[in-house]
Amino acid sequence: MMFKLIEVLGMIAFALSGVIEARRRNMDLMGVFAISLITSFGGGTLRDILLNRRPLYWIENQELTILVLVVSFVASVTLSSKRFHVTEKTILFPDALGLGLYSASGVAIALHSGTTSFIAVIIGIISASFGSVLRDIACNEIPIIFRRGQLYATCSFFASLAFVIMRNLHVSDTYSIFVCIIITAVMRAFAVKYDVKLPL
Amino acid sequence: MMFKLIEVLGMIAFALSGVIEARRRNMDLMGVFAISLITSFGGGTLRDILLNRRPLYWIENQELTILVLVVSFVASVTLSSKRFHVTEKTILFPDALGLGLYSASGVAIALHSGTTSFIAVIIGIISASFGSVLRDIACNEIPIIFRRGQLYATCSFFASLAFVIMRNLHVSDTYSIFVCIIITAVMRAFAVKYDVKLPL
Amino acid sequence: MMFKLIEVLGMIAFALSGVIEARRRNMDLMGVFAISLITSFGGGTLRDILLNRRPLYWIENQELTILVLVVSFVASVTLSSKRFHVTEKTILFPDALGLGLYSASGVAIALHSGTTSFIAVIIGIISASFGSVLRDIACNEIPIIFRRGQLYATCSFFASLAFVIMRNLHVSDTYSIFVCIIITAVMRAFAVKYDVKLPL
Repeated sequence: MMFKLIEVLGMIAFALSGVIEARRRNMDLMGVFAISLITSFGGGTLRDILLNRRPLYWIENQELTILVLVVSFVASVTLSSKRFHVTEKTILFPDALGLGLYSASGVAIALHSGTTSFIAVIIGIISASFGSVLRDIACNEIPIIFRRGQLYATCSFFASLAFVIMRNLHVSDTYSIFVCIIITAVMRAFAVKYDVKLPL
Repeated sequence: MMFKLIEVLGMIAFALSGVIEARRRNMDLMGVFAISLITSFGGGTLRDILLNRRPLYWIENQELTILVLVVSFVASVTLSSKRFHVTEKTILFPDALGLGLYSASGVAIALHSGTTSFIAVIIGIISASFGSVLRDIACNEIPIIFRRGQLYATCSFFASLAFVIMRNLHVSDTYSIFVCIIITAVMRAFAVKYDVKLPL
Repeated sequence: MMFKLIEVLGMIAFALSGVIEARRRNMDLMGVFAISLITSFGGGTLRDILLNRRPLYWIENQELTILVLVVSFVASVTLSSKRFHVTEKTILFPDALGLGLYSASGVAIALHSGTTSFIAVIIGIISASFGSVLRDIACNEIPIIFRRGQLYATCSFFASLAFVIMRNLHVSDTYSIFVCIIITAVMRAFAVKYDVKLPL
């Protein structure tokens, strides 16, 4: 139940980042739908394919797909009508939220599937970042996680690591997830504002 | 049996669109083979991975792969020798045919796997368009389904929707498939000729 | 056991090619890690997803992932500190080694899964080349296997074909693998040095 809710929130967050990115590229509604579905479900789908979990959550629960489509439609119309100026910074917050949420749920699901803590962290990073990798590849850009000075995968790594550590310390999942979101949101904000880079 | 035939026709249609695209980019024979296999089998393979159907049809039936390679070889040599002028419009017809066929078979297979009608439509669109997404990503272009004014995914959506509706009305599959092909062919032709765009 | 060793060697070879490519693009350490993991595990992962083999080898054996990360870290630091001039030719040797090794192991695993010899050759090529396809797509380049005059997939094809033939002639796997590596290394060296192209 708890993880269902997380998955839904992360999904909406990523859908919004997909809508913004698709609109910046002047795509039509079908393109917006495709990009937001890819961004929302890409990470979780790859996670489930790698761990061999079926049926896939969005095939089993069609209301998730409907929700993403509705959110994308509303966001898309709102963005168009208000002539809202959409910059790279606009997608920062929804993206950071989704990043924290998916890192946490990815780690939890991997541990539940019996992986080690180390592999769970890797799966957490994949769950959280693969949607945006697909989004950026579809838009013919070098994915944000490979770009220097974005600390994108780095944020997800710290969130995933924090979640594993808190699990081992028996911290409640609700609290852990909250910490993961704080980590990704603060780190991403710093990374973009002060142009923080990894030393290597 | 019926669906085997559809799958084969759609496969050849997509293989041709792959050959044309690869030749436009001046790839060698190995590149042509790779692109046409990806375009032919990409959508069906993703559909089967998402629905967890194994063994994959092209692994089980090697004659499908051989067929695509032979078709690609013949098409490739023909295109080269006749100095046939290959434009974006040349791939329009095989592409529209494959689009209609794969939408129909994708929907039928998804329904057979027990998905809802709504998810079956999504799977239909994925089956029909993912091969061309891979083809365009491999050629380092923004995939056609994300480009405004192509109505690519939109055609597949209407074909998939029509198939689901006709299934519920107990229309025979043969007839339904024919209707799906007409829909995609006519819509794509209009979209390209009159530069039709989605209003949003 | 034998194939485990091959998989490890091929993995390191591809990891090195990933590090070199990522460093050429001036990525940070996280980008280097991501690209080298994708290049190392991409082909084997797709092979196992297509053949439905689970759990995935790198999820089951976390030391493989740790090994790739350590190798990438060391290689990355070495490349940076020595101001080693990294050109396209630098990745030629590790890449050719990985290509031969993965072609051989891909064919062996496919045959073991019960595919025909023909499909095993296709799987061999996919196993060997898909990592580099992902690497190049992630770096927003047309994948090397689609570029004319690289003979990349062609090398893998001949290595895979040689392996299948030697299997049928009951040649020992150790010897066959050695032959596969010679084939890919010599062919790639020739292809790049004399700019050999396929006639079609």
